[in-house]
Amino acid sequence: MDVAVLGATGDVGRQICAQLIERRVLPTTSRLQLVGRPGGASGRASYGLRADLVDAYDEHAPLIDVALDPQDVVADVVVLTAGRTAPARAGAVADRAALAAENHAVFESYARAIARHGSGHEVVVVVSNPVELGVAVVARELGRHRVIGMGAWLDTLRFRREVAVSLGVRRHRVGGFVAGQHGDDLVPLWSTVRISGLDLDERRRAVAALRGGRTLDGFAAEIEGAKADLAGLMADDVAAAFDLIETWPPDLRGVSRPWLTHQSGAKTAAATANATVDLVDTVLDGRDIVVAGQVALDGEAAVAGTPLRGVLGVPVVLGPEGWTRVLLDEPEPDEARRLLAAAGRIDAMLAPWGLRSGTEAAR
Amino acid sequence: MDVAVLGATGDVGRQICAQLIERRVLPTTSRLQLVGRPGGASGRASYGLRADLVDAYDEHAPLIDVALDPQDVVADVVVLTAGRTAPARAGAVADRAALAAENHAVFESYARAIARHGSGHEVVVVVSNPVELGVAVVARELGRHRVIGMGAWLDTLRFRREVAVSLGVRRHRVGGFVAGQHGDDLVPLWSTVRISGLDLDERRRAVAALRGGRTLDGFAAEIEGAKADLAGLMADDVAAAFDLIETWPPDLRGVSRPWLTHQSGAKTAAATANATVDLVDTVLDGRDIVVAGQVALDGEAAVAGTPLRGVLGVPVVLGPEGWTRVLLDEPEPDEARRLLAAAGRIDAMLAPWGLRSGTEAAR
Amino acid sequence: MDVAVLGATGDVGRQICAQLIERRVLPTTSRLQLVGRPGGASGRASYGLRADLVDAYDEHAPLIDVALDPQDVVADVVVLTAGRTAPARAGAVADRAALAAENHAVFESYARAIARHGSGHEVVVVVSNPVELGVAVVARELGRHRVIGMGAWLDTLRFRREVAVSLGVRRHRVGGFVAGQHGDDLVPLWSTVRISGLDLDERRRAVAALRGGRTLDGFAAEIEGAKADLAGLMADDVAAAFDLIETWPPDLRGVSRPWLTHQSGAKTAAATANATVDLVDTVLDGRDIVVAGQVALDGEAAVAGTPLRGVLGVPVVLGPEGWTRVLLDEPEPDEARRLLAAAGRIDAMLAPWGLRSGTEAAR
Amino acid sequence: MDVAVLGATGDVGRQICAQLIERRVLPTTSRLQLVGRPGGASGRASYGLRADLVDAYDEHAPLIDVALDPQDVVADVVVLTAGRTAPARAGAVADRAALAAENHAVFESYARAIARHGSGHEVVVVVSNPVELGVAVVARELGRHRVIGMGAWLDTLRFRREVAVSLGVRRHRVGGFVAGQHGDDLVPLWSTVRISGLDLDERRRAVAALRGGRTLDGFAAEIEGAKADLAGLMADDVAAAFDLIETWPPDLRGVSRPWLTHQSGAKTAAATANATVDLVDTVLDGRDIVVAGQVALDGEAAVAGTPLRGVLGVPVVLGPEGWTRVLLDEPEPDEARRLLAAAGRIDAMLAPWGLRSGTEAAR
Repeated sequence: MDVAVLGATGDVGRQICAQLIERRVLPTTSRLQLVGRPGGASGRASYGLRADLVDAYDEHAPLIDVALDPQDVVADVVVLTAGRTAPARAGAVADRAALAAENHAVFESYARAIARHGSGHEVVVVVSNPVELGVAVVARELGRHRVIGMGAWLDTLRFRREVAVSLGVRRHRVGGFVAGQHGDDLVPLWSTVRISGLDLDERRRAVAALRGGRTLDGFAAEIEGAKADLAGLMADDVAAAFDLIETWPPDLRGVSRPWLTHQSGAKTAAATANATVDLVDTVLDGRDIVVAGQVALDGEAAVAGTPLRGVLGVPVVLGPEGWTRVLLDEPEPDEARRLLAAAGRIDAMLAPWGLRSGTEAAR
Repeated sequence: MDVAVLGATGDVGRQICAQLIERRVLPTTSRLQLVGRPGGASGRASYGLRADLVDAYDEHAPLIDVALDPQDVVADVVVLTAGRTAPARAGAVADRAALAAENHAVFESYARAIARHGSGHEVVVVVSNPVELGVAVVARELGRHRVIGMGAWLDTLRFRREVAVSLGVRRHRVGGFVAGQHGDDLVPLWSTVRISGLDLDERRRAVAALRGGRTLDGFAAEIEGAKADLAGLMADDVAAAFDLIETWPPDLRGVSRPWLTHQSGAKTAAATANATVDLVDTVLDGRDIVVAGQVALDGEAAVAGTPLRGVLGVPVVLGPEGWTRVLLDEPEPDEARRLLAAAGRIDAMLAPWGLRSGTEAAR
Repeated sequence: MDVAVLGATGDVGRQICAQLIERRVLPTTSRLQLVGRPGGASGRASYGLRADLVDAYDEHAPLIDVALDPQDVVADVVVLTAGRTAPARAGAVADRAALAAENHAVFESYARAIARHGSGHEVVVVVSNPVELGVAVVARELGRHRVIGMGAWLDTLRFRREVAVSLGVRRHRVGGFVAGQHGDDLVPLWSTVRISGLDLDERRRAVAALRGGRTLDGFAAEIEGAKADLAGLMADDVAAAFDLIETWPPDLRGVSRPWLTHQSGAKTAAATANATVDLVDTVLDGRDIVVAGQVALDGEAAVAGTPLRGVLGVPVVLGPEGWTRVLLDEPEPDEARRLLAAAGRIDAMLAPWGLRSGTEAAR
Repeated sequence: MDVAVLGATGDVGRQICAQLIERRVLPTTSRLQLVGRPGGASGRASYGLRADLVDAYDEHAPLIDVALDPQDVVADVVVLTAGRTAPARAGAVADRAALAAENHAVFESYARAIARHGSGHEVVVVVSNPVELGVAVVARELGRHRVIGMGAWLDTLRFRREVAVSLGVRRHRVGGFVAGQHGDDLVPLWSTVRISGLDLDERRRAVAALRGGRTLDGFAAEIEGAKADLAGLMADDVAAAFDLIETWPPDLRGVSRPWLTHQSGAKTAAATANATVDLVDTVLDGRDIVVAGQVALDGEAAVAGTPLRGVLGVPVVLGPEGWTRVLLDEPEPDEARRLLAAAGRIDAMLAPWGLRSGTEAAR
C-alpha cells in the first residue's frame, strides 16, 4: 500500500512523513510519494526532504520518491496537506474564508488530477483547511466515501485528553466524539463521552460535574471570551495564559489550548501529524475503526428529525475503502442545535463554489 | 531516567522531542524537559511545544515540563541543541568559525549551570555546532567521559548508507565508522568497513571497487570540487544536482548529499534527530554499544604512534555513564594522516577559548 | 488498566501473557495477574511463570502477581483461558460436549466470583472452549455487554488470511467477517468480504472466482470430507496433508488448516494468543474497533426477518466498556440459513445448563 | 537476513520463533526457517508450527519454511535449540554430563552440515545445553568468531535484574556481566557492576552493601545450600520457596530463582527466548553491542596473568560477523579464581570429545 503526501515539505507534511516511517505504518516494500509544486522552494525542498528521510530511516524506510505534478500522484492513500496555512504567531487572525479562496484551487487541481489519472481506489485524508471545503471538492470528484477530513478526529483527540486531564487519567480511558466544523464551530458531543471503569450513573454524574451546568448554547460566547482573555495575557506572559486555560472546563480548553499554541509560534504540527497518521494507519491496516471525521453526508444520519446532508464532522466507521457507516445516536438537544447550526454555516461557506449539500428539495 | 532538550523549539530540537516520545525511548514515568530562553519567541514557543506534544502523544507521553533558566535543567541525559544554526538555503555559507563565536557562550552558560546545580551524573549529547567546541566546553566543566558529540555518529550513519546503496543492501548490513571533525573535515575509516555476508577477501575487493583507487589524501580537494559543481547546478535544477551526486563514490556522496540537502532548504532535521535519539537511547537503555562520537581524548588511543589528545570523533563504547573505551585499531596510513590533520585543525579552532588539548608538554 | 489471565500456565495462557508484555499492551504502571488453581501443578507453575516473565521482560514488564483463588481476581479485563482443552495429537477427537461438561463448572466458578467480588466494570474475553458456553455463563452473571468470545475473531483472521493467500496479498488487504459458532459450525460471511483496491464489481468477480460456484449449503459436508481426507494422509505424511489443503477454496482451508495444525501436535497457541491480545488491546486502548466475537444477543440484529437472541458470533463494535453495537447487514440467503442453524445448535448445546436464549416467548 | 531455528518445535524454539516475528526482528522480506528432525513428532509439528505462526502474524511475518534435513539449513543466523533439555519438574536433576552425551551428536551433525553446505558466513547462537559443548563443536567446524553461546547473556540479564531489584530500579539501570560456565558454575563479575546515577564511590558502597562481605570463594557452597533449602520447601509450598529466595543476596538469587522456576514446572522459555532474540537482533541490526557470551578463546584475554584459551563466558563485542573483541578488564582476585576454575571444569567436560582448548603446549 502506497501513500502520497501532497505538500510534503510544509511543517505538517514533513512531520506526517516522518511519523509514517517512524511508526512503521509503511512497510519497507511500500512507497511514500513526496508531492510538491514544480519550481520554487517547495520543489527544491522535496528532493532535500527525500534525502533527509532516507538518511534518517534507511533501515526501515519505504521507497521514497518525489512528484512535482498532480497528475503523477500514484498512491492508495493520499494525504492532502498542500495549500496555505494560517500564520503561527501572536495576534495572527486565522481567516478561514481567505484560506478557502486560496486553497480551493489547490484542492480542485489535485482532486481532478486524481480523478483523471488515478486508480479509482484512492482514499483521501484531507488535512488542509478549510477541511470541509477540501472534503467537498474531493468528494465531488472521487465520490463521497473515499474522502475524510482529519479535523474532527484531531478535535476528538483533544477533547478526550481534556476530559482525561480533568479526571486524572490518560486519554485512552476516555471515549466520545467531537463533531461539527473544525475550529471554533466544533461540537463536543458530551452525550457520547464514556469513561473506562464508570457505569452509566457514575458517568452521568462525572460528566455533569465536568460541564458545571453549562450547555452548548453558550459555547460560542465562551470561546469568544476565552480568546479575548488569552490575547490580552499572552503578549506579556504566555505561561500565565496557558495557566489560565487550566482553570476552564474541558470543552473550552479543547478549543482554546490549540489556539494559544498556534499563537505562541509553536504550531501544532506534532498533534496534527499524529491524528492524520492515525487515520492513514486505519485505512492501511485493514481494520474498521470508529473515528470522527468530516465526511460528505447524504442523509445517512439524522439529528432532531432532520436528515444530515453535506459535509459535516461525525463519527464514522473508517476502513480500507474509506468510510462506510455513520454511528451517530440521537444527540442531546443542545448538541443537535449546535450541530445543525454548524452544518448550515458549512453549507454557506461552500456555496460560493457551487458545493451546497444534496438537492435543494432535500433541505 | 529523565531527558532535557536544550533548545527544544528549534527545528532539530522539536524533531528530537517528537522522536523521543514516538519511539518510546522515554517511558511514561519519566520526564522530558523542554529548555528555552526566557523572554522572546523561544520561551513562548516552549509552552506551545509542550501543549502540542501532549496533544499528540497523551497516551504514552512522559511528564513534559518547561524550563527557561539553565540552572533549572534537571535530567539524566541532556541534549544540547541550543544555539544558532547555519541558515538552510541555497548559497548560504556555513561559517563554523562565526557559529563558534556565537555558540561558545551558549555552551558555557549551560555547562556551568549543570556543573553547579546538577546531580553530578548527567550525560550530555552535543548536537549544536561546532560540535567539537561544545564537547570541549562541556568536558572541561563536567569531566571528559560524560559528554559525547553526535556529529561523528551522523556522519557514520550517512557513510554506511552510501556504502550500502552502492552495494544494493540496507544500511544495517554495513558496518564501519567515520571519525575526525564533523563537516568537511570528517574521516571515513574505510579500514573499518564491514559488510554482512562478505569474508575478509571479498570485503577487501568490494571496498577497493567502491574506492576506485582513490585515497583520502585527495578527499579535501574532491569535496571542494563537488560543492562547486553542485552550487552551479542547483540554482536551475536541484533534481539534476541530486542526480549528479549519485555518480560519485560513497564517501564523497556522504559529505555532499547532506550539504545539498541543507542548501535545498529542506534542512536535515529528521536525520539529525534520528542519530541523536540513537545515542540518547543507548545511554538510557543500559546497554553498551559501539558508536562513533566526538569525545575529549587524553591519550586513550594512538594513531601512527601519536597518542590522541583533545576533542576528536572516534569509535567508542557508549553506555549509561557516558563513553568508556575507545575502539580504534591502527588505521591505514592515509586515514591516519587525515585524522591527525583534523585533530590539529580542531585544536586550532579551540585555541581562542583556551581549550587546547591536554598539557602542552604532551603534544 | 489491569489484566487477569485465568489459566495463565496453560500453553495458550502463557503465550497470551508473553504477548501482552511483548507488545506493550500493558504499560509498566499496570498489573498482570496470573490466576491458577490452588494446589497442584497449575499453582506451582504460576509462581514459576511469574519469575520467567519478569526475567524476560524486566525492562518494561507491568507489575505481575499470582492469585490462586477466583475471589482474588482483580482486573479491568479478564481473559478466561482456564479449563481443559482438547488434546493436540493425531487422531484426537475434539469432543466439545465433553469439554462443555468439564468447563461449565470452571466458567461458573470464575463468573460468580467476579460478580460477587469484582468492580462491576470488568470486561471478560472468553478463550476457553466451548466459547459460546463461556460467554453464556459469564453474560448471565455480569451482563451481556461485558463479555465477548474470541473464537469468531480468530476464525475471521484465519478466513481473511486464506482469502488473502488466494489473492497473493497480505491479510490486512482483506476485510470481512466470520460469524456463527466457533469450530466446524462457523459461518464465513462472504457477503462482507472486501478487498483493498477492488471496487464493487471487481470484488464480486473476485469473490465468485474464489468460491467457485459453491454455497454454504454444502459447507458442512465439505468439512466432513476434508477431515476424512486429511486424517488418512497425515499418519504417513503430514507435509502432503498440508499440501492438499492448499488445493481447496479459502473458506474450507480456514477450517481445515487449524484442525490439521492441532492434529499435528503443534497446537495453535500463537494464533490464539494473537487474536486474544488483539481484543484485549482494543478494550484497553480506548478506541472502538469493529471485530467479530461471540456475544449474547437480545434481538439487536435480525437475519432473514428473525431477530437473533442468544449467544452467536457476529461483527460488533468493541470498546473499553465491552461491545456496543452489532454491525450485521442482511446476509445472503445461504449465509442466513447457516447462521440460523448455528444459532439453533448453540441454543441446544446451552440447554442443559438452563442457558437457552431470551424468553421462550421471544423465540 | 534470514534466520534458521534448529529445534523450532520445542518450548524454547517456539517461543524464539514467536518473539523473532513479534518484535519485528525479521522483516517481511526475510525468511525464517523452522528446522526439525525428519519423521516423528518434531517433523510433523514443524509444519503445524508454520501454520500457527502464519495464522498469528500474517500481517508482518517473514517467509516461513520448514526443513527436516541439516544440509538444507540456509540462513545468515542459525539458532541452535535442538537436542534434549533437562526435564522441568520438581526433583528432576539436571545432569549436564548426560545431556552432553546426547546432544554432542546433535551439535556435530548440524555443525558439519553447515560447514559443508553453508554460505561460509553464518553466525550461530547456541542455546542448547551444555552450551559450552555446543560452542566448542561449532567453533571447530565454522571458526571461533562465528559462534556464541547464549548462556552467559541470560545469566547476565538475570544478575542485573537481581541487583536492580535490590536497589529498587529497573534492570536497564544496572550494568555488569556474568562470565564463566552457564549454570551453577557461573561467575558474577561484581567488579563490572555499574549503576546509573551512582559515581564510583557510591557504586562501591552500594555493591559492598549488596554483597554483605561475601566473596565468590564461598559461592559454590552457598548455591548447594540454597538448592537443598528450596528442595525441602517446594514440595509443600512453592510460594514459600520463592519467598525464601527474596531474602538472599542478588548473585545467589540469580542462580537459585531460575533453578526453582524450572523445578516448578514452569520452564524458563520466555526468558531464554528473550535473551536469545536479543543476540540475534544484535547480529542482524548491524550495530556492535557489548554482551556476555560463551566463546572459544585463544588468548585474547588474560586473567591473573593466565591467557584464556578454550570456551568460556566473557564480555565481548558482538556484531554482524560474530564476536570480535573481548572486553574483560582484570577482575578481582576472587572473580579470577572462580573464572579460572570454571575454565578448567569446562575443559574437563570437553575432553572426552577431543575438544580441549588450544594446543597442549599453549596451556
